[in-house]
Amino acid sequence: LRQNHPEVIFCQGKTPQQIKEIVGYLAKNSNNILASRASLEAYEAIKEVCPEAEYHALARMVVVNRKPLQLNKGTILVVSAGTADLPVAEEAAITAEIMGNRVERLYDVGVAGLHRLLAHLDKLRKANVLVVVAGMEGALASVVGGLVSRPVIAVPTSVGYGANFHGLSALLCMLNSCAAGVGVVNIDNGFGAGRLAAIINEDAR
Amino acid sequence: LRQNHPEVIFCQGKTPQQIKEIVGYLAKNSNNILASRASLEAYEAIKEVCPEAEYHALARMVVVNRKPLQLNKGTILVVSAGTADLPVAEEAAITAEIMGNRVERLYDVGVAGLHRLLAHLDKLRKANVLVVVAGMEGALASVVGGLVSRPVIAVPTSVGYGANFHGLSALLCMLNSCAAGVGVVNIDNGFGAGRLAAIINEDAR
Amino acid sequence: LRQNHPEVIFCQGKTPQQIKEIVGYLAKNSNNILASRASLEAYEAIKEVCPEAEYHALARMVVVNRKPLQLNKGTILVVSAGTADLPVAEEAAITAEIMGNRVERLYDVGVAGLHRLLAHLDKLRKANVLVVVAGMEGALASVVGGLVSRPVIAVPTSVGYGANFHGLSALLCMLNSCAAGVGVVNIDNGFGAGRLAAIINEDAR
Amino acid sequence: LRQNHPEVIFCQGKTPQQIKEIVGYLAKNSNNILASRASLEAYEAIKEVCPEAEYHALARMVVVNRKPLQLNKGTILVVSAGTADLPVAEEAAITAEIMGNRVERLYDVGVAGLHRLLAHLDKLRKANVLVVVAGMEGALASVVGGLVSRPVIAVPTSVGYGANFHGLSALLCMLNSCAAGVGVVNIDNGFGAGRLAAIINEDAR
Amino acid sequence: LRQNHPEVIFCQGKTPQQIKEIVGYLAKNSNNILASRASLEAYEAIKEVCPEAEYHALARMVVVNRKPLQLNKGTILVVSAGTADLPVAEEAAITAEIMGNRVERLYDVGVAGLHRLLAHLDKLRKANVLVVVAGMEGALASVVGGLVSRPVIAVPTSVGYGANFHGLSALLCMLNSCAAGVGVVNIDNGFGAGRLAAIINEDAR
Amino acid sequence: LRQNHPEVIFCQGKTPQQIKEIVGYLAKNSNNILASRASLEAYEAIKEVCPEAEYHALARMVVVNRKPLQLNKGTILVVSAGTADLPVAEEAAITAEIMGNRVERLYDVGVAGLHRLLAHLDKLRKANVLVVVAGMEGALASVVGGLVSRPVIAVPTSVGYGANFHGLSALLCMLNSCAAGVGVVNIDNGFGAGRLAAIINEDAR
Amino acid sequence: LRQNHPEVIFCQGKTPQQIKEIVGYLAKNSNNILASRASLEAYEAIKEVCPEAEYHALARMVVVNRKPLQLNKGTILVVSAGTADLPVAEEAAITAEIMGNRVERLYDVGVAGLHRLLAHLDKLRKANVLVVVAGMEGALASVVGGLVSRPVIAVPTSVGYGANFHGLSALLCMLNSCAAGVGVVNIDNGFGAGRLAAIINEDAR
Amino acid sequence: LRQNHPEVIFCQGKTPQQIKEIVGYLAKNSNNILASRASLEAYEAIKEVCPEAEYHALARMVVVNRKPLQLNKGTILVVSAGTADLPVAEEAAITAEIMGNRVERLYDVGVAGLHRLLAHLDKLRKANVLVVVAGMEGALASVVGGLVSRPVIAVPTSVGYGANFHGLSALLCMLNSCAAGVGVVNIDNGFGAGRLAAIINEDAR
Ligand SMILES: Nc1ncnc2c1ncn2[C@@H]1O[C@H](COP(=O)(O)O)[C@@H](O)[C@H]1O
Ligand SMILES: Nc1ncnc2c1ncn2[C@@H]1O[C@H](COP(=O)(O)O)[C@@H](O)[C@H]1O
Ligand SMILES: Nc1ncnc2c1ncn2[C@@H]1O[C@H](COP(=O)(O)O)[C@@H](O)[C@H]1O
Ligand SMILES: Nc1ncnc2c1ncn2[C@@H]1O[C@H](COP(=O)(O)O)[C@@H](O)[C@H]1O
Ligand SMILES: [Mg+2]
Ligand SMILES: [Mg+2]
Ligand SMILES: [Mg+2]
Ligand SMILES: [Mg+2]
Ligand SMILES: [Mg+2]
Ligand SMILES: [Mg+2]
Ligand SMILES: [Mg+2]
Ligand SMILES: [Mg+2]
Repeated sequence: LRQNHPEVIFCQGKTPQQIKEIVGYLAKNSNNILASRASLEAYEAIKEVCPEAEYHALARMVVVNRKPLQLNKGTILVVSAGTADLPVAEEAAITAEIMGNRVERLYDVGVAGLHRLLAHLDKLRKANVLVVVAGMEGALASVVGGLVSRPVIAVPTSVGYGANFHGLSALLCMLNSCAAGVGVVNIDNGFGAGRLAAIINEDAR
Repeated sequence: LRQNHPEVIFCQGKTPQQIKEIVGYLAKNSNNILASRASLEAYEAIKEVCPEAEYHALARMVVVNRKPLQLNKGTILVVSAGTADLPVAEEAAITAEIMGNRVERLYDVGVAGLHRLLAHLDKLRKANVLVVVAGMEGALASVVGGLVSRPVIAVPTSVGYGANFHGLSALLCMLNSCAAGVGVVNIDNGFGAGRLAAIINEDAR
Repeated sequence: LRQNHPEVIFCQGKTPQQIKEIVGYLAKNSNNILASRASLEAYEAIKEVCPEAEYHALARMVVVNRKPLQLNKGTILVVSAGTADLPVAEEAAITAEIMGNRVERLYDVGVAGLHRLLAHLDKLRKANVLVVVAGMEGALASVVGGLVSRPVIAVPTSVGYGANFHGLSALLCMLNSCAAGVGVVNIDNGFGAGRLAAIINEDAR
Repeated sequence: LRQNHPEVIFCQGKTPQQIKEIVGYLAKNSNNILASRASLEAYEAIKEVCPEAEYHALARMVVVNRKPLQLNKGTILVVSAGTADLPVAEEAAITAEIMGNRVERLYDVGVAGLHRLLAHLDKLRKANVLVVVAGMEGALASVVGGLVSRPVIAVPTSVGYGANFHGLSALLCMLNSCAAGVGVVNIDNGFGAGRLAAIINEDAR
Repeated sequence: LRQNHPEVIFCQGKTPQQIKEIVGYLAKNSNNILASRASLEAYEAIKEVCPEAEYHALARMVVVNRKPLQLNKGTILVVSAGTADLPVAEEAAITAEIMGNRVERLYDVGVAGLHRLLAHLDKLRKANVLVVVAGMEGALASVVGGLVSRPVIAVPTSVGYGANFHGLSALLCMLNSCAAGVGVVNIDNGFGAGRLAAIINEDAR
Repeated sequence: LRQNHPEVIFCQGKTPQQIKEIVGYLAKNSNNILASRASLEAYEAIKEVCPEAEYHALARMVVVNRKPLQLNKGTILVVSAGTADLPVAEEAAITAEIMGNRVERLYDVGVAGLHRLLAHLDKLRKANVLVVVAGMEGALASVVGGLVSRPVIAVPTSVGYGANFHGLSALLCMLNSCAAGVGVVNIDNGFGAGRLAAIINEDAR
Repeated sequence: LRQNHPEVIFCQGKTPQQIKEIVGYLAKNSNNILASRASLEAYEAIKEVCPEAEYHALARMVVVNRKPLQLNKGTILVVSAGTADLPVAEEAAITAEIMGNRVERLYDVGVAGLHRLLAHLDKLRKANVLVVVAGMEGALASVVGGLVSRPVIAVPTSVGYGANFHGLSALLCMLNSCAAGVGVVNIDNGFGAGRLAAIINEDAR
Repeated sequence: LRQNHPEVIFCQGKTPQQIKEIVGYLAKNSNNILASRASLEAYEAIKEVCPEAEYHALARMVVVNRKPLQLNKGTILVVSAGTADLPVAEEAAITAEIMGNRVERLYDVGVAGLHRLLAHLDKLRKANVLVVVAGMEGALASVVGGLVSRPVIAVPTSVGYGANFHGLSALLCMLNSCAAGVGVVNIDNGFGAGRLAAIINEDAR
């Protein structure tokens, strides 16, 4: 395990009781802990064995931050298209933070209103790694990828309806991006994107 | 048949001989004629019965322009993303022209190089109807739709490979566009897009 | 923002409280407001900050109509196939109305009973823009497109079951239409269709 | 084997030599023979062992008609949408004929030009069984199904491109038909449709 | 409307109150009435306006049988594979009965236990029209189609899980049947199958 | 490497020259060699370095049988539905033979003609492992699986057209089999089926 | 019925009352009984007619073990990737046990932590038949298949989200395995895998 | 343009003449040039205007290396599964090299023969960025991702047949990887993977 890699629990499909037991077990060593896809009930169960745990409701994540983080040098910028993409964006951001990164957010800058994005060109170009979160047409990853020269981790979300087919449209759009330096993770996988961004950023010392 | 609507022949799957016969038959009245998906062989067969026919090689279209066109007032702008999208873009442009429209082109302005597109904001905003042609991720339709307030006809193309699935990625991307005023036609259907743009533009008198 | 373009909120996935806050904020300026996919609860929350708001239950839309509309000249006709398609059809109709258009309705005229549709040929041909809403096989768009010479915005709906695959059958049917002048929007996207129809109709002055 | 059921060979994927051998073997008894998906080469090989064989080029079928047919009473009407659907339509028609049926054709009556279809309402309503062949959007089956009260066998064809996905659009459209009395066969399966129509028509004595 | 064709209401997506109103309206004339996909609540609402209505719980159908049926001569046999397919099978059977047909049932004869099916060869071969209902692999339609010489209406059901993809496996299996005389209807569309069988059987006089 | 496992080369996508080099290299030790998906040209190249190589044209396989086989006790029965499935069936049979098994064949026994299959019940029930090869609807695996109590390896083939979708229909059908003891391999993977059957049969000593 | 084959009931979609009746009926003879996909309620209903029934909560299975089992010689090893795959793995294990097999388990050995799997190479190589259960990417079947020379039954699970598409990713991965001796069953079909493994293992005497 | 970023031409779909003209134009400035998907004919046309161009036949790439490269510090390791994946792997490797990186190769280490991969653990763990290229089941990315702690760029290839669906199986497998630090690019997109790896590696100074 690298310095800044927390223990991770994926809570989806586990009962609060099961989660509490796993966290109780992991809490015996001094590592940091990250529980993803955690409901409020899961959080309350965790607090019984780990009172210092904090809950990030939007990201549905519980963080136990007990080991001082060694901060990486570069900044990770999480960019997202619409309000409904926020839970996934926050999942990525929280994950990158607990892995020792300075994280900035640039939310609600979907491509249908390009001026909002272009107003932040500086922020975009200063970032060492970018995570771009978008549902619906998922075009934001290509546009951002074209504006920056650092790696872009694209996260399609299942936000949308109809011919969105639960995130397929954004996924295919991102895989077909012709911008340089774009890698894609699974639909709604904010955690995986945050972790990949963090691993890349470990270099930036 | 409206004033400016030509007779149309879809040549794909027809032999030069069959095409020649149909054109010969149609050429008896004074209407204009448009043959789409026409090979050079098809064109040469057509010329035997209709010497004034012109061939647009890139668009794979034969045009017989014998009835003076009544020019609509607004301009139709055909925008396209990459070089490989040109045949479809030209199919749209030629179709709109033979239906009596002033057509302008703005080619090679894919979203991975946004500055090329933004350099033509005036042109984009002056158009009365826009046709946006893009393969791969198809993100151009959303970006253009966000920049203009007139109708955008989006044409996904089958340009690309792999997870492009023969145009599916661009199609889904365009159907999920959150920009205002975007309607979509079939993959590679430049003809249908040009015709719909022309029908909309008939209003612009 | 064009004269008749209201502020729009997409309520799906937002809490009544969140919606109330956004509407409260938007209500500070004098623009009209349109909230789509709004539940009764959302409407009641909106009324607290905006007492003049009206609820269109079938369309699941809240309308705040405080700025006098500048009426466009042409008529938009919304045509629909079956009873279950009505919510989407009404979403299109309400959207077009709040954007300053005279809207007529022609409902329950699916292609399996062609006489019902053909009885209204005059209405169909008088319209300046048509929105055609259909689920199941989605054939209505082609049939209407063949009967009129003005633009047709086709809206596939998710109405149906089995090999309907949540609207895929109607979507593919409409994209493959061989009638002239048909553009397609996302499955169940009555709002997008109404808005595109309105944008096209702005010309009809 | 019923009275009028010929021996059938599906030639696709077989060499002329193999086909010749099979036909030579079958020709030993006095039954009629039908070879589908037969190239001209296949036909020429067949003629060597069966000189009375006839070739229907459009339908790609070879017919050996040596046993007098017992004619069923009702008429089978084969209806088709576009020129490119003709090979499938003819496959259905020839199959129904060799199985002892009076077959009528009504071709090129796609739904985008409804008047062409409606001009033949009498023919449609006089038929005992109908085979409806259409590619692209496949809407013709629903429209015909709504006009008649006898069984309709719907044959989607692979004619089209793009979001047609090799006949999927027409197939889904036909399966979702809400008209009464529509049964569907495989994409391009004119033979199966003609045979099912013939089996139904055996009743009509 | 043919002699034996009832008025039909598709209840899915309608409230008991709406259904009651429609039935009340239809009940003013003397025709028979069939309500499909009807819950117990829908039935109870119907009884208020139509006390003679009967409920077929398994088929989820309400039948109002007030006009004496003119019985067709042939028998319709409904064959089904597994217990879970019974609702769809009964939907077909009830539909065929109210349209004036003698209906027999042969249930629970899936292809994995061929002896159960083969024990009823007589019944299979005596039927004038067959409806075959099967989920999972859907192989029963081909097997039955190979055993009989009368028309087979195949109904794929959504029964199954995993690679069944909500009925897709049975649907594709049935469309690809190489048995003679098989036509397919939509997944779970027992009503459509019963009606098509009835229309075919009208001949059998 | 087990006793009877030959060296295997998958020739698809390799040039005759490349294949010749690989076989030349493998031929240096005394093992048996199996080349699958081998064209006649590939075979001729192989013969230059390995004159005892034999070509099985239908299976497109080259066999170099130089090490005496240790024969397993049980019999492997390869069952296939149609003529066009033979190459895949033979690929399975040849593979099982070179791995030391007694192989029997039962070809052309598709489910649409059940009597042909049932005439061989003894053969089916005597086999220790069965390989069932079928395209189109793929129903044969379920039927055979229901008749025998030994393991059935099901091989879907890409034989068919239209809604067959290159073998998808047979694949889904086989995966959804409700017969006991059926395992599935990839579409057209006769080699994999023969090898799995052989591995299972190694037990039968 | 073979010696060790229990009577099997698939409870999904059946009411506790229906299940109780079927079990009551089956319990009249002396065979063992296996009820799969059984809820706790189903189990309690079964106990009323069959007090010796045992419930395996994780596997959702009820077992009535009243006939002494004849134990097969070889061992069946059930291997699984993640915690969420356990219900399917246990379904396979319980099924194989009630069919008279020694079953061992090797759980939580997904490929992202290869050392956990490699630590049990002995166990893997001692097994006579292996069942490999995995969701997400499903890669475990190929890895295990490459490590052992006995048959591997691969069970894809629906565990995952996004581009997992309800098990499709694991299913396709397993079907494309290039390891020797892998056969695949339906998504989540632990029962079918356990039964196929048991049938293969019957040989191992 | 960054220091080491060459000018890039995607040759697929362009004629040798067109490619020659583009290269001729680009060659006027002193940058390096990379032409991907280039046939031998394309290469020969390029040599006319750019005699120092070199051809990498396996990768189908032309490289014009005229500007001295500034070498990044870390190593990029390209790992591939089978022989048929080599063109894509080489495309990635050549791309990374021309962008100034030390590239190592580890080929033919598919997961069905794990020992070949595990024999190179050192090489795997010494790399700063890894590109993993695999078709068929695509499992190699997860396995490698689990063995290293640096970023893994996964490239699914279209190598395979049947349920591979032109690379879909490997793509879905890779997107669902549960190993840490895996990002995915389009099917067969070796170029995109090499470029993303290079961009990440720019950090490693
Ligand atoms: N939101 C997420 N999406 C995908 N994978 C996750 C997520 N959160 C955690 N994981 C993965 O799940 C693993 C823990 O799973 P488990 O042992 O079932 O709790 C972690 O090591 C991560 O690889
Ligand atoms: N490129 C095209 N894509 C789709 N439809 C077309 C195209 N070109 C022409 N058409 C349609 O094809 C019709 C003529 O078809 P046909 O009678 O077969 O020549 C025209 O009326 C158009 O509706
Ligand atoms: N189970 C069913 N599946 C498909 N269509 C049905 C079904 N039941 C009734 N229908 C059709 O629905 C029509 C009535 O629909 P509605 O007017 O919405 O009640 C009838 O004429 C039938 O064509
Ligand atoms: N027809 C086939 N289908 C699938 N895999 C095959 C086939 N023939 C051989 N193989 C596999 O391909 C491997 C050899 O591949 P190669 O090293 O590329 O020649 C063998 O070990 C088999 O696992
Ligand atoms: Mg970039
Ligand atoms: Mg706009
Ligand atoms: Mg029109
Ligand atoms: Mg009808
Ligand atoms: Mg039959
Ligand atoms: Mg069996
Ligand atoms: Mg193995
Ligand atoms: Mg890793």
